[in-house]
Amino acid sequence: MTSKIVLPTPPNPVGSYKAGIIRGGIGFVSGQFPLVDGKLAFTGHVGAELTTDEGFEAARLAGLNVLAQIARLTDQFNTLDGLLRLDGYVASAKGFLDQPAVLNGASDLFAEYLGEQGDHARTAFSVSQLPLNSPIELAVTFAVKS
Amino acid sequence: MTSKIVLPTPPNPVGSYKAGIIRGGIGFVSGQFPLVDGKLAFTGHVGAELTTDEGFEAARLAGLNVLAQIARLTDQFNTLDGLLRLDGYVASAKGFLDQPAVLNGASDLFAEYLGEQGDHARTAFSVSQLPLNSPIELAVTFAVKS
Amino acid sequence: MTSKIVLPTPPNPVGSYKAGIIRGGIGFVSGQFPLVDGKLAFTGHVGAELTTDEGFEAARLAGLNVLAQIARLTDQFNTLDGLLRLDGYVASAKGFLDQPAVLNGASDLFAEYLGEQGDHARTAFSVSQLPLNSPIELAVTFAVKS
Repeated sequence: MTSKIVLPTPPNPVGSYKAGIIRGGIGFVSGQFPLVDGKLAFTGHVGAELTTDEGFEAARLAGLNVLAQIARLTDQFNTLDGLLRLDGYVASAKGFLDQPAVLNGASDLFAEYLGEQGDHARTAFSVSQLPLNSPIELAVTFAVKS
Repeated sequence: MTSKIVLPTPPNPVGSYKAGIIRGGIGFVSGQFPLVDGKLAFTGHVGAELTTDEGFEAARLAGLNVLAQIARLTDQFNTLDGLLRLDGYVASAKGFLDQPAVLNGASDLFAEYLGEQGDHARTAFSVSQLPLNSPIELAVTFAVKS
Repeated sequence: MTSKIVLPTPPNPVGSYKAGIIRGGIGFVSGQFPLVDGKLAFTGHVGAELTTDEGFEAARLAGLNVLAQIARLTDQFNTLDGLLRLDGYVASAKGFLDQPAVLNGASDLFAEYLGEQGDHARTAFSVSQLPLNSPIELAVTFAVKS
């Protein structure tokens, strides 16, 4: 890692599950939110309380937590093969259609931090409500070296 | 399995797909609902027609169907390595934010029934509507022994 | 492939991600829409602007794009083991409950085109809004031969 990006401490789960797990060569990171020091940096819906740019920033913050979880699970990326899929959920105002631009906040971070290992497929969804009133939730699948 | 929990008969799919499948060492269980003897034990939205406790119970019932599907796919858990990920969808009233507490109904069951093999990553979502007017849908990914 | 179905050119991503990726024996196709020649063949919500039959047709068109992406990723299906999971998202009018019938448009296509290799687990969801005002988004996971 030559990136100057500093990863946060990986957040704890908010229920009776693991923050992440690896089995059978495939790893999953539980839904990550734009938490900074345990507190949501943004709340509300993109297209209402939040602009697209703020949504982009929220997606980047959630993406930093994704990377922090993967770092913990893969011995600081030593056993990481690469990302597979990002499921991105955006709490959106009615009629807001620019979820892809919001989620680029996470996708761009993964490219910047991991290079080719950050390449990933993606799904993008608008939802009416996320846990904790978060504007963003990211779920990531990755492969580990065999 | 030393658990005294009795698993139901795994429900059939409600469309032209499989209830579950394993390929390449990874297994997927199709979306499961709180069906008991082919009938939804709960309908409606958590935070409106249903309390959080009823949602928890609905998640546990859907979780029993998940376990029943995995039992069928893994020769009664003999070939199961362990769970990977639970995607939990909660049909929620506007403003209801306690999806994690609802989904603990499934996560706690998996821990109780499978022990360490039940460890899993999780995503939690509120949705405006689920098939059949179900309050809960659970989709589970698992790994099989190589 | 003895099917007479002609696959389209796989659409490009609408953000900073890949249209599909394979790592560790598992492949993911990014969310696919009912795009024909780069333009959505249907827009709006099933149960409002669109009938169930039109939703079925939209799901089939999105499914053709899924197959086109998999063809590109697997050397024209030569390295495909088989499908694993279809996550199907239906932009639905309030009270519309027949998401499974809509998504059969994709599931039936996969069976018709791939035979047993098309067998898959499935999740079905109604969402309030999809990117580009699409009525359908399909995300597919598959396994490759080892």
